[in-house]
Amino acid sequence: MLEKAELGRTLEKADYKAQLPQLRAELLTVQRQLQESRHAVIIILEGVDNASEAEVANKLNEWLDTRGLEFFAFGPKTDEELQRPRFWRYWRSLPARGRIAILSGSWYTGTLMEQALDRKTPETVHQHLQRIAFFESMLARDNVIILKFWLHKSRSQQKKFLDDLDKKQHKRWGVTETDYQLLKAHDKLISAAELTIRTTDSAEAPWMIVEAADARYCNMTVAGSILKALKNRLANPNRPHDLAGQTGMTILSDRSILSTLDMHARLPDDDEKSLKHYQNKLMALSWEAFHKKRSLVVVFEGWDAAGKGGAIRRIIRAVDARMCRVIQIAAPTDEEKAHHYLWRFWRHIPLAGHATIYDRSWYGRVLVERVEGFAKDHEWRQAYLEINEFEQQLIDHGVILAKFWLHITPEEQLKRFQEREATPYKQHKITDEDWRNREKWGDYEQAVQDMVVRTSTQEAPWELVPANDKPYARVEVLKRLCERLENGLKG
Amino acid sequence: MLEKAELGRTLEKADYKAQLPQLRAELLTVQRQLQESRHAVIIILEGVDNASEAEVANKLNEWLDTRGLEFFAFGPKTDEELQRPRFWRYWRSLPARGRIAILSGSWYTGTLMEQALDRKTPETVHQHLQRIAFFESMLARDNVIILKFWLHKSRSQQKKFLDDLDKKQHKRWGVTETDYQLLKAHDKLISAAELTIRTTDSAEAPWMIVEAADARYCNMTVAGSILKALKNRLANPNRPHDLAGQTGMTILSDRSILSTLDMHARLPDDDEKSLKHYQNKLMALSWEAFHKKRSLVVVFEGWDAAGKGGAIRRIIRAVDARMCRVIQIAAPTDEEKAHHYLWRFWRHIPLAGHATIYDRSWYGRVLVERVEGFAKDHEWRQAYLEINEFEQQLIDHGVILAKFWLHITPEEQLKRFQEREATPYKQHKITDEDWRNREKWGDYEQAVQDMVVRTSTQEAPWELVPANDKPYARVEVLKRLCERLENGLKG
Repeated sequence: MLEKAELGRTLEKADYKAQLPQLRAELLTVQRQLQESRHAVIIILEGVDNASEAEVANKLNEWLDTRGLEFFAFGPKTDEELQRPRFWRYWRSLPARGRIAILSGSWYTGTLMEQALDRKTPETVHQHLQRIAFFESMLARDNVIILKFWLHKSRSQQKKFLDDLDKKQHKRWGVTETDYQLLKAHDKLISAAELTIRTTDSAEAPWMIVEAADARYCNMTVAGSILKALKNRLANPNRPHDLAGQTGMTILSDRSILSTLDMHARLPDDDEKSLKHYQNKLMALSWEAFHKKRSLVVVFEGWDAAGKGGAIRRIIRAVDARMCRVIQIAAPTDEEKAHHYLWRFWRHIPLAGHATIYDRSWYGRVLVERVEGFAKDHEWRQAYLEINEFEQQLIDHGVILAKFWLHITPEEQLKRFQEREATPYKQHKITDEDWRNREKWGDYEQAVQDMVVRTSTQEAPWELVPANDKPYARVEVLKRLCERLENGLKG
Repeated sequence: MLEKAELGRTLEKADYKAQLPQLRAELLTVQRQLQESRHAVIIILEGVDNASEAEVANKLNEWLDTRGLEFFAFGPKTDEELQRPRFWRYWRSLPARGRIAILSGSWYTGTLMEQALDRKTPETVHQHLQRIAFFESMLARDNVIILKFWLHKSRSQQKKFLDDLDKKQHKRWGVTETDYQLLKAHDKLISAAELTIRTTDSAEAPWMIVEAADARYCNMTVAGSILKALKNRLANPNRPHDLAGQTGMTILSDRSILSTLDMHARLPDDDEKSLKHYQNKLMALSWEAFHKKRSLVVVFEGWDAAGKGGAIRRIIRAVDARMCRVIQIAAPTDEEKAHHYLWRFWRHIPLAGHATIYDRSWYGRVLVERVEGFAKDHEWRQAYLEINEFEQQLIDHGVILAKFWLHITPEEQLKRFQEREATPYKQHKITDEDWRNREKWGDYEQAVQDMVVRTSTQEAPWELVPANDKPYARVEVLKRLCERLENGLKG
């Protein structure tokens, strides 16, 4: 999921200088309002390296009024701390009402390290993360505003950063031995961060993911989102308590994930082999899955007319019909309406070794139901967690899960709609509703962005497929499906 | 905690017959209302033996309208079920809106067995229980009313029950081999049940604990509380969502735990040795704890004038002053008020090998703050979980925790108050507030009952000490404190 944050954002020096004065003035204003309120604020900085954390912390220290501010950098435990329960030192650092605490190194650091450096079993990690989640939700109920930042860098960005410092022989950023250890363990650290973020994210104590390769961009973005969050909370002091258990995770960027896709991707006109090649591969893999009793669940979502049906047909042609079922998800039946929204999907979980392809899926809850208002606000917000838990149960049982979003541009969709209207045997495929949905393109795009960020997990990431060119999309789907199956069957 | 439910309740046949017609009529009425509502109901029966579950299930089947009712008894998984994730079969059994499902054997049965028969690590159990809690809270948000009953028997009751059946050679209750296995593992089963109940109890899916040794009493109590819960829920269809994370656990009984204490307990007049004996023992144990670096936290709660101070003085006389500190909890300071209510208690967690005695404690949240309205309803309800989590963190760190409730009768309190007023050097100990608190005796009693049920854990049970006789209470406190220390130091 975190690789989805690698959008390459930077901030030019001139822009930075232009924006800074107002940001600082507003930060001080909101801090004064905070002092009069019953809220305390905890800002948690975690990330790929200490340097970015230090950089952001220093800037916040400079921009905020230090009289209302405490700064804590937790290193190894002191003798005093070792003699008390793990959370004792954190209780000591809790800010009083009206005050802000900035934590570089926090209750997360230990568990992230332990995971990255393989020191704990998954169960112990899980239990500790649950404990953290409980702790934060308890503080949140006591009017503590908790803002958590993951300062993200890709492995290559981090390597370049350390190499540059090495060349300069100038370690003013406070690079430590641990940074080099963590660079080696980068992939594990990212897995650990993803698990941590997913388990401890909530509307009350949200995780915000920021690209940290460009310091100006990172500092400005963190400070800006602190400002926004505090303004928002102080303006709504009587926030409902029923936010608990909802996700709040966002990637802080004005560039959307979908906008990064190469929408000009085309299958070369002379490529007549790829489709067949991957279909053959899929056939072999599906038999392997059958013999290994591993089930496959495939989810298709995408814009109207994005080509889901065509892509699915290319899959089922490659798989023995006896072991693959396609479930078309339309409006729920009466019986389905009388149950929890996930009930209709649980019904069709495949037998061992079999496959179910969902043509639209449980993600309707956070797409159409969200945008059209069929689900209430708290319902679709809660759904990210419910969906993650549902999929985790599939994965824990050994099900291989693949999720595809077929992406087309509005222009391409318009072209396809017009074509459908003009083609007699395709007219039934286009309705007034399709035209209405087009008007909400922006809302849907936001919903897709949130869905991808909040439900892309290591075992079941969203595959975003540029689908303006149908042949390309079909081959791409088959190729990525083969990859997921191959990976899954290894595990 | 469950042993606190062993109150010896029974129901005479004549009373049973007298109460039954109205209960049945009301059950049918509420079931009809349910059919018109958007709620579904899940009734979970778990307990020490299958027989009680079957007994209750059969009676509910008889008393309710079977057309709106489904009954599920989950045994070992079928082939179909084994091929799907663990919860698949439970999803299939979920009732539609308007209907009731009775589950004898449920998502709890497997994990209870695994724990009782030592088949899983604590971490795996914890993770599964968290999964259950999430599942239930998800259903609850979808208007499913979940009522969970633990049908309790003591080991000796269960043994007698099985022996009697054996004599009769008449196993109409469906006693199974597992019942005998579980009798052997009774203590472990009870531990497992306590952990399970504590982890998965919530206001939305509460656990209710019923004595099952007397079938009439058990059937009637379960049916009665189903009736009460459904009436309540159907009368309040728009229940707030912010109940999540609150406890709902109750022991279903009209007899309070405090009422079972022997309030005539006295130290024999000629016993001049016991006090000294246990003080010497405590001294030795406290040095052992010091050398083993195990800390001790002791909590004293009790009625005004119950003798907390006197009991604490008898302890500190036995312990080296350098390693023991008494914290008197009065109204919070300004600094304390500016933090979470637990903050002031975390401050005083002792160093390794040292002891802290809290004269009144965090339990104020669910006692005085509840009764006097200083804490809001959702705050004190939430506090049970917060306190359990806090104490669990102490225990996980190796702290030995002992909690005493000193119990006196209202008459004894009156006598002591009057004595204080009559004795010049004791007059400062009695205030108008003390007299006012007496008027709320019943409310406090209810708060104590809930506190004992919801926060008595295996590692830190409430010690309820009859304290009408001060010498008796002091010796009893020392004795039980020695026991807890001894046990703790073994672990």
